[in-house]
Amino acid sequence: MNAAQGPDRPERATLATIASDADVSMATVSKVLNGRPGVAHETRDRVQSLLQARGYSKPGSDRLVAPLVEIVFNELEDGWSLELLRGAEEVVRESGMSLVVTKSGDRHAPAADWIEGVIKRRPFGVILVLSDLAAEPKRQLRRRNIPFVLVDPSGEPAADVPSIGSANWSGGVLATKHLLSLGHRDIGVIAGPQDVTSARARLSGFRSAMADAGVPVREELIIPGNYHLDSGVEGGLQMLSDSKPPTAIFATNDLQALGVYEAARTKGLVVPDDLSVVGFDDVHFSAWSGPPLTTIHNPLSKMAAEAARLLVRFRDENQLDSIRRDLATSLIVRKSTAPLKL
Amino acid sequence: MNAAQGPDRPERATLATIASDADVSMATVSKVLNGRPGVAHETRDRVQSLLQARGYSKPGSDRLVAPLVEIVFNELEDGWSLELLRGAEEVVRESGMSLVVTKSGDRHAPAADWIEGVIKRRPFGVILVLSDLAAEPKRQLRRRNIPFVLVDPSGEPAADVPSIGSANWSGGVLATKHLLSLGHRDIGVIAGPQDVTSARARLSGFRSAMADAGVPVREELIIPGNYHLDSGVEGGLQMLSDSKPPTAIFATNDLQALGVYEAARTKGLVVPDDLSVVGFDDVHFSAWSGPPLTTIHNPLSKMAAEAARLLVRFRDENQLDSIRRDLATSLIVRKSTAPLKL
Repeated sequence: MNAAQGPDRPERATLATIASDADVSMATVSKVLNGRPGVAHETRDRVQSLLQARGYSKPGSDRLVAPLVEIVFNELEDGWSLELLRGAEEVVRESGMSLVVTKSGDRHAPAADWIEGVIKRRPFGVILVLSDLAAEPKRQLRRRNIPFVLVDPSGEPAADVPSIGSANWSGGVLATKHLLSLGHRDIGVIAGPQDVTSARARLSGFRSAMADAGVPVREELIIPGNYHLDSGVEGGLQMLSDSKPPTAIFATNDLQALGVYEAARTKGLVVPDDLSVVGFDDVHFSAWSGPPLTTIHNPLSKMAAEAARLLVRFRDENQLDSIRRDLATSLIVRKSTAPLKL
Repeated sequence: MNAAQGPDRPERATLATIASDADVSMATVSKVLNGRPGVAHETRDRVQSLLQARGYSKPGSDRLVAPLVEIVFNELEDGWSLELLRGAEEVVRESGMSLVVTKSGDRHAPAADWIEGVIKRRPFGVILVLSDLAAEPKRQLRRRNIPFVLVDPSGEPAADVPSIGSANWSGGVLATKHLLSLGHRDIGVIAGPQDVTSARARLSGFRSAMADAGVPVREELIIPGNYHLDSGVEGGLQMLSDSKPPTAIFATNDLQALGVYEAARTKGLVVPDDLSVVGFDDVHFSAWSGPPLTTIHNPLSKMAAEAARLLVRFRDENQLDSIRRDLATSLIVRKSTAPLKL
């Protein structure tokens, strides 16, 4: 009836059990515990590893007064990860909690060993970035009353899982309409990984905007990517080598857009004079690139902050609405797009 | 004699005290504790806030089996912070610990309230980035046996403080020699904040290399900066407006270098044809900038990993050598530097 009696719990450690197992006096254990001198080096080692291993919790320990919130990334990617981290860290800190950052798994779920670790860490709550949870880990977290929220979920989250996303489809429409309004018709796309919802939505937004404008999509100019720089370079080189190359490219994220810049440089093309480029995400470096990148603002830091606030509300109201919220995206026009030259 | 009896410790919480203070049965407290149903909403609220406030530690709780290492930044800056975070997170995770990320204070020390927080969190160890510790917080951490390591220390750390830095002076020399070898003589510098050791060392390296080459330093082309983009833009515009503008600029970090790019664009100058630019740090986006930035590789991720390893060694050997280690820097030649046009 008490989770503390579950099979995954070690026996309770006390000064006495530690002392007897280390074959020393309780006074010695207390000295080690409080970092006081007068203990032989190897004895201190033995006692400390026992304290560690048994997870001895000092009476009156107030560690739990500052609960942990854990944010799980499958990669620590420049710009993107940091935006999310900033948003979560601020809300968590201002709520008197601390943020644990873990890298685990892939785009679909944390690695198998993560669940054991998180159960040991007992965070107050979990923010899962670009991921999802299988039924079993979900059950394990719930059994332990550890709430979780998905941010920018990679799949379609189950109805009972709260998630914070953004308007990826609308962003794809905005990016495409911008290029169409500049007169571009031969528009290439470096698509993101199609097993990720945001990538499918961005590409689908492109297709809808093209259809609405009655402009045919040139399928040979739609090249799959991985949201990393190399996809932008390779995809860019491939379509710029086409007998009828695109005059504009929707790169579907900022990293792929910088890759397209690199491809254009290699081909001796100038952005935006010879090629217009639109990114997606508006991470900080997109404003610093040469030329500053026209992109779709993705409120990453707001998304993570919102997820953290949901967990704080759970702390304060002991309820977590199983909501799906998508924050708005918007077009940021900088210097990488120009009217089609006739 | 026992830290647990210090004034900063709450009285020990037990199921019984929580139950009596919440005016409910121990069974009810246990239900709330284990997230089981059958408790009125407002009762659950009352009990949970008490459990939180008293830092009730469940018997057999194994949270302490996964100790925390805390990394403290004074800012979460693109590229730079993430490189450090990557290095620390990997070592900490592989050592079976978890990384807490905290933003606090300024370039000189964590904020005053940080020490109270960290004492509550009881991390296994602390990594302080671009910072230092005053005597009192140092004493408080030591009294509680919480080891700490400085990474890229902002000042000259006391002899008893372990720190991991990098060869900033040598990097400044390398950057300058590279520009001199290309025939540049009118070299501008966007200096970093001179209250930070790394910035002083980089500028001093520049001066030494110029002196060694017998090339006079044009003091009006040495402009103070803050290591952020805006300094590069403003400083760049200022020196490029000089009656005899520099043909090359040592930006002393990558962000300021991207600012110089922006200044050059504004002035209609092409990098590297009209202006050579060298950065410092080699954060990821420097390879993606237009043109890819020639810079000094600063092993940020290695530095943080090394600091984390020192803490792990402390865990395993209960000893922390008070060392000062500087990792090597190296020149990375990309596309932003070219021979002086005569």
